[in-house]
Amino acid sequence: MLTTIAVDAMGGDNAPAVEVEGALQAARDLRTKIILVGQEEKIRAELVRIGIPYPREKRLHIEIVHASEVITMDDPVATSVRRKRDSSIRVAARLVREGKAHGLVSAGNTGAVMATTKLVLGTLPSIDRPALAGIFPTLKGRGTVLLDVGANAECKPIHLKQFAIMGAIYSRSILGVRNPRVGLMSIGEEDLKGTELIKEAAQLLRGAPINFCGNVEGRDIFTGDVDVIVSDGFTGNVILKTSEGLVEAIMSLLKTELGQTVVTQLGGMLSLNAFRSVKKRLDYSEFGGAPLLGCKQISIICHGSSNVKAIRNAIRVAKEFHQAQLNERIEADVNLLETTKNL
Amino acid sequence: MLTTIAVDAMGGDNAPAVEVEGALQAARDLRTKIILVGQEEKIRAELVRIGIPYPREKRLHIEIVHASEVITMDDPVATSVRRKRDSSIRVAARLVREGKAHGLVSAGNTGAVMATTKLVLGTLPSIDRPALAGIFPTLKGRGTVLLDVGANAECKPIHLKQFAIMGAIYSRSILGVRNPRVGLMSIGEEDLKGTELIKEAAQLLRGAPINFCGNVEGRDIFTGDVDVIVSDGFTGNVILKTSEGLVEAIMSLLKTELGQTVVTQLGGMLSLNAFRSVKKRLDYSEFGGAPLLGCKQISIICHGSSNVKAIRNAIRVAKEFHQAQLNERIEADVNLLETTKNL
Repeated sequence: MLTTIAVDAMGGDNAPAVEVEGALQAARDLRTKIILVGQEEKIRAELVRIGIPYPREKRLHIEIVHASEVITMDDPVATSVRRKRDSSIRVAARLVREGKAHGLVSAGNTGAVMATTKLVLGTLPSIDRPALAGIFPTLKGRGTVLLDVGANAECKPIHLKQFAIMGAIYSRSILGVRNPRVGLMSIGEEDLKGTELIKEAAQLLRGAPINFCGNVEGRDIFTGDVDVIVSDGFTGNVILKTSEGLVEAIMSLLKTELGQTVVTQLGGMLSLNAFRSVKKRLDYSEFGGAPLLGCKQISIICHGSSNVKAIRNAIRVAKEFHQAQLNERIEADVNLLETTKNL
Repeated sequence: MLTTIAVDAMGGDNAPAVEVEGALQAARDLRTKIILVGQEEKIRAELVRIGIPYPREKRLHIEIVHASEVITMDDPVATSVRRKRDSSIRVAARLVREGKAHGLVSAGNTGAVMATTKLVLGTLPSIDRPALAGIFPTLKGRGTVLLDVGANAECKPIHLKQFAIMGAIYSRSILGVRNPRVGLMSIGEEDLKGTELIKEAAQLLRGAPINFCGNVEGRDIFTGDVDVIVSDGFTGNVILKTSEGLVEAIMSLLKTELGQTVVTQLGGMLSLNAFRSVKKRLDYSEFGGAPLLGCKQISIICHGSSNVKAIRNAIRVAKEFHQAQLNERIEADVNLLETTKNL
């Protein structure tokens, strides 16, 4: 069986156009089967728009599974997850639980996707709380994994320890870092700094089977000196959104300033390749979504404003997760840890 | 009496060179008297180096007060503050307490400067915890005040309320914003998101005499849509250092990419003015240090790596604080609030 990924076709800000096109690219380029989940008519219309009339998509390993409801960005998470039982994300998660797909990708309402995934797929027996893992660009090229970037606003030290183990496995298995260096996000390198949570978590991390290198600070995210950074979901989400906002602001400032005079306009044109490279290095869509680590099956959550490339890359990541048997590895590692501790 | 500012001459990474030169510029340009506090011989040697032989500094309204000890960046905060009773920051704070200076500026070990300031100057009667207020650049030009950026790792809702009031007064009195919009840093605009601290603080802020506009997210820092953002000191410090690190990383990436080909090199040269403008817009030294709001007297804390301009601007800010009677305003506003509440 080809690796099969269920894509929530109704999730993102530009759904289903972006999802359908991203799925098509993935099916073509990545030898992956895609199940597009959502309102069948809209999905089919989108396939026709990009030149794939029914039933040609079958040959491309694309299947459609109808789901009548959609959870919007403005829907309150708790009630929409409970009430919209035929939402595209709910149906996609069900396909994964039933073994009809190996993982899911969604650019929908992040809170609703996380809640649905946890509810339908369940959490790994050894993990208390799944965590959303974001990847940040660094000067050294390979990304830094930061988790949690938003699944758990409040955390206990034991959660941060589990995040560290999951992040290290992610960095090793998917990003190819041999012995990932793990840091704990704090406000100073000294052990005495930070909150009670940080101090207790640091103690736990020192005893964990990871390459723990102590507290790190905000500026260490982008140097590439550590491979995994652990934080509670409130801090991690603030970091993610601050970084996105700052990149946008700098790019916007640069654009304005380059437009000021004829000389800088010319300079800007000649520098275009350099700007493109920098933008590409900073572009979240290159990294392809954030996995919700710690669920029993694979769930990759994309930015609401994801473009085609972001969806395609998220499908690639979901496939890599499946092939690397990432969840099995997490379960084995954490179990081993618990067993050793109880000896 | 001229406004007099005590400058910790031994504080920063490049002390006392940067401090002495910054003080000299401020004394010349800002009609301010400066007391340079630190090891007299070193300060005097620096004055000679920049062409001000003794006793010519007197005519420039520069005075030296000797302090034999220095708290270094590596000194543990608690013990150094307690034991080094003749440190430059301690002596500077004493000058302020005794009325010999109107405020102090230091680029020293931030933890030690905060602890010393709180200890020697004391906290305003109506304020529970002083907060460090940072200014962030925005697309609209005027800066966003974020507080606390590091004085209090753990906060209670009442602290955040006091931060909001102090931040609004700062924005109004120093940055000239007529009716500053105040936001609460969270991970979503909905009231339900965030930690317990955020939910309780939001309720308190809705009842405070400020222009409260609800929860904001990391990306709202740089748009300029809000003027003041309130957060606990852990989150604020992470935001500050993440932003600094990201700006450095982007500038470094741009430099590398612009050096790649002859065309981009030429483009880079022609775009130089645009880059300089952007860099200036993002440059923390333009804003002149972070005030520790809520102390009985004025304390402006600078980055350890401050340059001459940053020190000069911090002295300017200290002078503006004195002239605007900022602490008196904070005390009056918070008192008024408490009185109204008890009616």
